[in-house]
Amino acid sequence: MIRVGVVGGTGYTGVELLRLLAQHPMVELVAVTSRAEAGTPVADLFPSLRGRVGLKFSDPAAAKLETCDLVFFATPNGIAMQQAPALLDAGVRVIDLAADFRIKDVALWEKWYGQRHACPDRVAGAVYGLPEVNRDKIRGARLIANPGCYPTATQLGFLPLVEAGCVDYAHLIADAKSGVSGAGRKAETHLLFAEASDNFKAYGVPGHRHLPEIRQGLSLAAGHEVGLTFVPHLTPMIRGIHATLYARINREEDFQALFERRYAAEPFVDVLPAGSHPETRSVRAANICRIAVHRPQGGDTLVVLAVIDNLVKGAAGQAMQNMNLMFGFDECAGLSQIPVLP
Amino acid sequence: MIRVGVVGGTGYTGVELLRLLAQHPMVELVAVTSRAEAGTPVADLFPSLRGRVGLKFSDPAAAKLETCDLVFFATPNGIAMQQAPALLDAGVRVIDLAADFRIKDVALWEKWYGQRHACPDRVAGAVYGLPEVNRDKIRGARLIANPGCYPTATQLGFLPLVEAGCVDYAHLIADAKSGVSGAGRKAETHLLFAEASDNFKAYGVPGHRHLPEIRQGLSLAAGHEVGLTFVPHLTPMIRGIHATLYARINREEDFQALFERRYAAEPFVDVLPAGSHPETRSVRAANICRIAVHRPQGGDTLVVLAVIDNLVKGAAGQAMQNMNLMFGFDECAGLSQIPVLP
Amino acid sequence: MIRVGVVGGTGYTGVELLRLLAQHPMVELVAVTSRAEAGTPVADLFPSLRGRVGLKFSDPAAAKLETCDLVFFATPNGIAMQQAPALLDAGVRVIDLAADFRIKDVALWEKWYGQRHACPDRVAGAVYGLPEVNRDKIRGARLIANPGCYPTATQLGFLPLVEAGCVDYAHLIADAKSGVSGAGRKAETHLLFAEASDNFKAYGVPGHRHLPEIRQGLSLAAGHEVGLTFVPHLTPMIRGIHATLYARINREEDFQALFERRYAAEPFVDVLPAGSHPETRSVRAANICRIAVHRPQGGDTLVVLAVIDNLVKGAAGQAMQNMNLMFGFDECAGLSQIPVLP
Amino acid sequence: MIRVGVVGGTGYTGVELLRLLAQHPMVELVAVTSRAEAGTPVADLFPSLRGRVGLKFSDPAAAKLETCDLVFFATPNGIAMQQAPALLDAGVRVIDLAADFRIKDVALWEKWYGQRHACPDRVAGAVYGLPEVNRDKIRGARLIANPGCYPTATQLGFLPLVEAGCVDYAHLIADAKSGVSGAGRKAETHLLFAEASDNFKAYGVPGHRHLPEIRQGLSLAAGHEVGLTFVPHLTPMIRGIHATLYARINREEDFQALFERRYAAEPFVDVLPAGSHPETRSVRAANICRIAVHRPQGGDTLVVLAVIDNLVKGAAGQAMQNMNLMFGFDECAGLSQIPVLP
Repeated sequence: MIRVGVVGGTGYTGVELLRLLAQHPMVELVAVTSRAEAGTPVADLFPSLRGRVGLKFSDPAAAKLETCDLVFFATPNGIAMQQAPALLDAGVRVIDLAADFRIKDVALWEKWYGQRHACPDRVAGAVYGLPEVNRDKIRGARLIANPGCYPTATQLGFLPLVEAGCVDYAHLIADAKSGVSGAGRKAETHLLFAEASDNFKAYGVPGHRHLPEIRQGLSLAAGHEVGLTFVPHLTPMIRGIHATLYARINREEDFQALFERRYAAEPFVDVLPAGSHPETRSVRAANICRIAVHRPQGGDTLVVLAVIDNLVKGAAGQAMQNMNLMFGFDECAGLSQIPVLP
Repeated sequence: MIRVGVVGGTGYTGVELLRLLAQHPMVELVAVTSRAEAGTPVADLFPSLRGRVGLKFSDPAAAKLETCDLVFFATPNGIAMQQAPALLDAGVRVIDLAADFRIKDVALWEKWYGQRHACPDRVAGAVYGLPEVNRDKIRGARLIANPGCYPTATQLGFLPLVEAGCVDYAHLIADAKSGVSGAGRKAETHLLFAEASDNFKAYGVPGHRHLPEIRQGLSLAAGHEVGLTFVPHLTPMIRGIHATLYARINREEDFQALFERRYAAEPFVDVLPAGSHPETRSVRAANICRIAVHRPQGGDTLVVLAVIDNLVKGAAGQAMQNMNLMFGFDECAGLSQIPVLP
Repeated sequence: MIRVGVVGGTGYTGVELLRLLAQHPMVELVAVTSRAEAGTPVADLFPSLRGRVGLKFSDPAAAKLETCDLVFFATPNGIAMQQAPALLDAGVRVIDLAADFRIKDVALWEKWYGQRHACPDRVAGAVYGLPEVNRDKIRGARLIANPGCYPTATQLGFLPLVEAGCVDYAHLIADAKSGVSGAGRKAETHLLFAEASDNFKAYGVPGHRHLPEIRQGLSLAAGHEVGLTFVPHLTPMIRGIHATLYARINREEDFQALFERRYAAEPFVDVLPAGSHPETRSVRAANICRIAVHRPQGGDTLVVLAVIDNLVKGAAGQAMQNMNLMFGFDECAGLSQIPVLP
Repeated sequence: MIRVGVVGGTGYTGVELLRLLAQHPMVELVAVTSRAEAGTPVADLFPSLRGRVGLKFSDPAAAKLETCDLVFFATPNGIAMQQAPALLDAGVRVIDLAADFRIKDVALWEKWYGQRHACPDRVAGAVYGLPEVNRDKIRGARLIANPGCYPTATQLGFLPLVEAGCVDYAHLIADAKSGVSGAGRKAETHLLFAEASDNFKAYGVPGHRHLPEIRQGLSLAAGHEVGLTFVPHLTPMIRGIHATLYARINREEDFQALFERRYAAEPFVDVLPAGSHPETRSVRAANICRIAVHRPQGGDTLVVLAVIDNLVKGAAGQAMQNMNLMFGFDECAGLSQIPVLP
């Protein structure tokens, strides 16, 4: 058993993390912090946790997080970088579900996130927590930068192609669609039911913060800079990301076999049979990425379809997968829930 | 480990049962039958089960169900009554998720279901599988009539009141709202997304088949005939039933305490604090009924709010709870999933 | 042509009013005010109005509303009572879509709305704008209290019964379900898509502000005080109210005929054939109330089903219907849109 | 006034056409045919039309369509080609909302639609009813092939670019998302609410019937063959198409100005200001296409966003726009409804 704390348990990645941690056989949940909700039983805010999470939200100052083995930050961007260094120095391992440690180029991070980085010296040592790329490094990590939801789906979909070097790196296109929970549990008008329901729109086309994260990951995999057009969309569903990825072929391959080979040993990536169209609900509430590869009309443009649950493989589930690796647990411990369908 | 078969695994109660059975520690799933889909891998029809259910649908004739310890019928009404007797005679225990054995008065059943009963002699011996009422009988049962979804929510909400005899039995009102999955996985026009979405309607107001089932259960609990007006509605969500129940008080009580007492020992019924409004999502994908009791404006009309997931506590979860009781397993085995929120 | 101003055009009743007014043949829209959005083109906030509403939001102070023939208040409760008196004194007619003038008993209003009334002397002279009850008074009114959405559906459903005196007034039950737009365009967490979608809940069971408004209207119609249990629910759709109404019969009638007679001359109330189940989408975006009457199982409880679009017959459409009456236009002018289905 | 008949009024394009025709000042609706529903009042099937469409569905054989000035076919593919020739020969004008006359290359049509064409000799004379391209030809047409929904959005989005010759024709990408009504009012399992809600998926990636239609239109506009990857998706909303279009720039232009110029005179195409993200609800229930042009990060890939209501500008509204042109009515007659938002 390890002692685990969660900073910022009032958002959607937070409550999802609590759902998963409360069912993990090796985790003792010792603190969930929230300045705004300190003193409120967690299960009052999230009745789904009644009888399963007995803790109250605690004030961060009083939470004694330094006595934990591991602390998750399920906070907005900019919080973990303030608090993680002291925890790390106290010997606590840290997984940040936000973006503070994802971008290696600190200046680039500061440009996209519009703030000075509070601990630039810790960025280099942070491990980007995409197990399908960095499994071994994650095992030894003290600080994990847990990937974003779009970056998880997009990278898993493009990785076999850019690693193999068989497509035009300079002109990748990712047309991604996200359920509304991806925007977080924020009281903003455009996220209201009466605004987002029965409606579909793109957003952030001029530039979205996940663009540099995806480009960084794919560039590392490719061995040089990739060019990417990334267009996110808001779709009227709660959970799920569907990434539709386009790449121009520049070398013939058996693409289906390439994907199957790449992910043969991965417990949480499922390459579907040729001709498939993965649905987001086929991964709802589960830590799985399902992928299909198409070559429409035999042309020179490949189409890859990748789906995840943005709150699980795109956030809390992947974070717990990283925890499992860091502490030597079975990588699948606590993550074997079957997707909820319908 | 017990050997379990499922007849009719292509509907929503079927796939939900498979999701739960595949995660149960004591169950070996040996056959899932479907005449229409015989030969198709179950996971081809329901990709959510990829890697978790390796079986193909088998033809009922070839499925050797008589070698099972337990067979679930997740079939339309009228199937189990044809096939259950032979299985029972072969020593197999049976849980019918449909309505064939729910109504003790066979003539009444035949009137509401519009067909002759195929084995009226088996009805008396069937146990109505509402553990909160019949736990001991369920333990020894060979044949379980698993309750309907509306009847589960409505009975659990009214039971403390009618057992205590503190409301007017003759004029109970149940205004119930169901998600669309309650209608089953049937290709019918009125269940299409473009018909049922962004829309709300009552249906079956002149008479719904769950009316006699609810009246039977409440009459047994009350010790005499109850009068009930039951109005079901279709609401644009996938899962969930919300029953809003009205009863005229005819004897003062501490109603909150009455409910808390009645369900104190129940693992799957959660009486909320006074003043609460349970949400259907607080039980989504979990085997829980949450209940709140109100007395608006201090008047003489009680309002009880009860929510369940129609596919879990209203169908497959309750069926598995019954299985646990029948085979001496922990009643909660395989049923400890935390609700999925959001 | 009349000159019309709208105070508070940034909410859902506001934008719906603008949609309707912009299509009315006798209306010149001269000002739409919003302190927060002053200077912003209305069509920037609501792109659906591009090319149809050329105005910018103006600051209330600069809007010269006193030069209008009519001013609508599509504001939160408590605004119109501050500003209407000066307009009325300047000869401008006023329709308040909020609650400031709905309750004749000012002390009762102050209790439910939690504030002192700013102009209690104007309340008596205000006409409650339900044309099916007050058509003649509306024609001569200077100040209209436009009914709430729940009160419109509930009163139209109960009126024939309480006017006829054939049901038990003391124990009426209104189980009402509303789409999320009924809560307004407010950035509140519980109204987020990821909270309200795929979810159903009751709210305000201990007491909702529409309760005294409905009781007042039905008591006037009945000729004495009625007793009402009113339970509102939030259902995952954008528009629509479905009121399911229960009343105990105390005198036999041909109830279908009673309803048909009562509404025979009403242009915007449609009594459906016996046995019908009205759907909210059958009135989507249109100024119609559809009603069906049931007597389940021939018992002594009547069930009335009434549907409206909460933003049209429940707010902006009814307000424009009142305007038509006040200014001697055809009552249906600008209100003949056919419902949008699917 | 013209006499209008509708063949096949039981689907979504049919009921939408009836909604629009019933509000058109110059149309007398004389017959709505349906073999299956002959004798049923149209308003029984679609209560939204109660009081507005008094006709019963009539049997096609008895409908005397040859006495009409114009007949719309709102039928499945393959019907209009059987019946249109006789009507045309009788002097009736015809607008087919299905695909029978859209593809000029009959062999290509037969390949994609899997049937022999019944009147290949009529195809050449049919006019493709996209007014933004063919306005003058439409004015004189006897037979209109009304465009598909995806083709309308996709062509309107790409047209300025391919006409100007400033992008790489050979590698256009259209990533399109449609509401579920686009699939029609067919009782098919995958269109059920419980399947399509809270879910997102691509379909038809290997090849969709709208691909050759879009390629034909864009190739004509470009003056030579274009290459197109077309990926349609099903999104959980009732109405709306959002086309996200990608093209590689091969000649610099002021792209915003190019689009504004191209559509300056078009009553139903609205080019949004630079930086905009059109929402499908901004055109809900209205005959409008809204378009925005982006050049993310100043790169060489253009992104065009185009939204329509698939049932209006993508079907029935465009058909009525064509009718207006054919009969010399104001092009906007009956089509001035403001979009319904929220």
